[in-house]
Amino acid sequence: MKVDAYFTVAEAEAATTQDATVVVVDVVRATTTIVEALANGARGIFPTGSIEEAVKLAASLGREDTLLCGERRGVKIDGFDLGNSPSEFTRDVVEGKRLVMSTTNGTAALTAAPEARRVLACALTNLGAVAEAIERDEHVVMVCAGRQGGFSIEDAVCAGHLLLRLDELRGADAESLRLNDAALASRTLGQAVVPDAAFLRGVSAGIALAEIALEADLDVCAAVDRHAIVPEMRDQSLVVGG
Amino acid sequence: MKVDAYFTVAEAEAATTQDATVVVVDVVRATTTIVEALANGARGIFPTGSIEEAVKLAASLGREDTLLCGERRGVKIDGFDLGNSPSEFTRDVVEGKRLVMSTTNGTAALTAAPEARRVLACALTNLGAVAEAIERDEHVVMVCAGRQGGFSIEDAVCAGHLLLRLDELRGADAESLRLNDAALASRTLGQAVVPDAAFLRGVSAGIALAEIALEADLDVCAAVDRHAIVPEMRDQSLVVGG
Repeated sequence: MKVDAYFTVAEAEAATTQDATVVVVDVVRATTTIVEALANGARGIFPTGSIEEAVKLAASLGREDTLLCGERRGVKIDGFDLGNSPSEFTRDVVEGKRLVMSTTNGTAALTAAPEARRVLACALTNLGAVAEAIERDEHVVMVCAGRQGGFSIEDAVCAGHLLLRLDELRGADAESLRLNDAALASRTLGQAVVPDAAFLRGVSAGIALAEIALEADLDVCAAVDRHAIVPEMRDQSLVVGG
Repeated sequence: MKVDAYFTVAEAEAATTQDATVVVVDVVRATTTIVEALANGARGIFPTGSIEEAVKLAASLGREDTLLCGERRGVKIDGFDLGNSPSEFTRDVVEGKRLVMSTTNGTAALTAAPEARRVLACALTNLGAVAEAIERDEHVVMVCAGRQGGFSIEDAVCAGHLLLRLDELRGADAESLRLNDAALASRTLGQAVVPDAAFLRGVSAGIALAEIALEADLDVCAAVDRHAIVPEMRDQSLVVGG
């Protein structure tokens, strides 16, 4: 089993993802929020690029059962129904709804690998479920969404913990994983870092959330294995898959 | 003291380097070779982009005391005097010469921060000297040259060991370093990884060198503190500075 990680979307776009399982990681906060929304009964989540695209898509889907979600600089987009805080996506708000979502880093990562065999969303909150969903794959590509085009340590740490889970599931007798440099670094970071809320409060994305009074989101982002679901892209939306 | 690391040249180009000390790291092999050449008496090294640029510059400097050096896909460029193996840059070859050098990753990193206060070259071979040269700076930017636009673990590990040296030099009473996410990850990697030749043989760049029968270069690349010199950009060439 070959596992390649990429620390920025630009690096992932230049990589070979054909026939691979792509795992997108954006712990703070897009993939955490996606897991939360699907766990609470959302029918599907459409990741979109620009705000204009999101508004247009929501109109074409029919506004009565569609929610517009997303952030710019961490803050809910003006006129949208929801921002990007996982705690907003409760069952009474999202159950049965379609969500159109535009975030700064995560949604670009979800659409960066059009030739992939499948595209999954991974956060700390669904780590175990994702590990089980990919353990028999031949080629896994982990795309860390990062932050404004650059490296995010919490995404690398999450990718590293996913690798450690894979090692556990595969057992001591399995052929060792073939890792590229970024996957090797992720695993080392996973071994060194406990991904709790205290850790998230010290990273750039956590500090930026505190500045806009949203640091409570980090408690949800750090809730390892809170849900046993795997968001998967089907056509243009994320649904419960795996 | 603020230390920001960047794992790719593209990320560094988008970053603020004004008034900063920029430390370029390309362990396998450009900065290792640069340290070796200056330690063996080269007068200066001109990092250049394209092969054409290198040939033109060498002609204008005067070919009698100028050597053309560089690689593409690891191999010496056709018609050039030297490749990019540190062991080629011995005293009898380079002493008193000017070197024009074009490599795949390292030379782009050396010219990525034109507004920096100063630009230094760092390898494992001059780690201690670089740490002493920067310990009083307010803002240090570490640019990991990476590999074909992507992440290289050995550059991150070298940057991490440089941070650990800074911690040692500054002592327990110093204000703690303010690190961006990539610097934080580098330090964690530095704490976990001993940067010896065995480590370098397992990383992508080391594997690629073995494929072209140049793995012996890795023994020089891993020779921590082999030289006490700091290559520094002055005008357009690297000279002994620090």
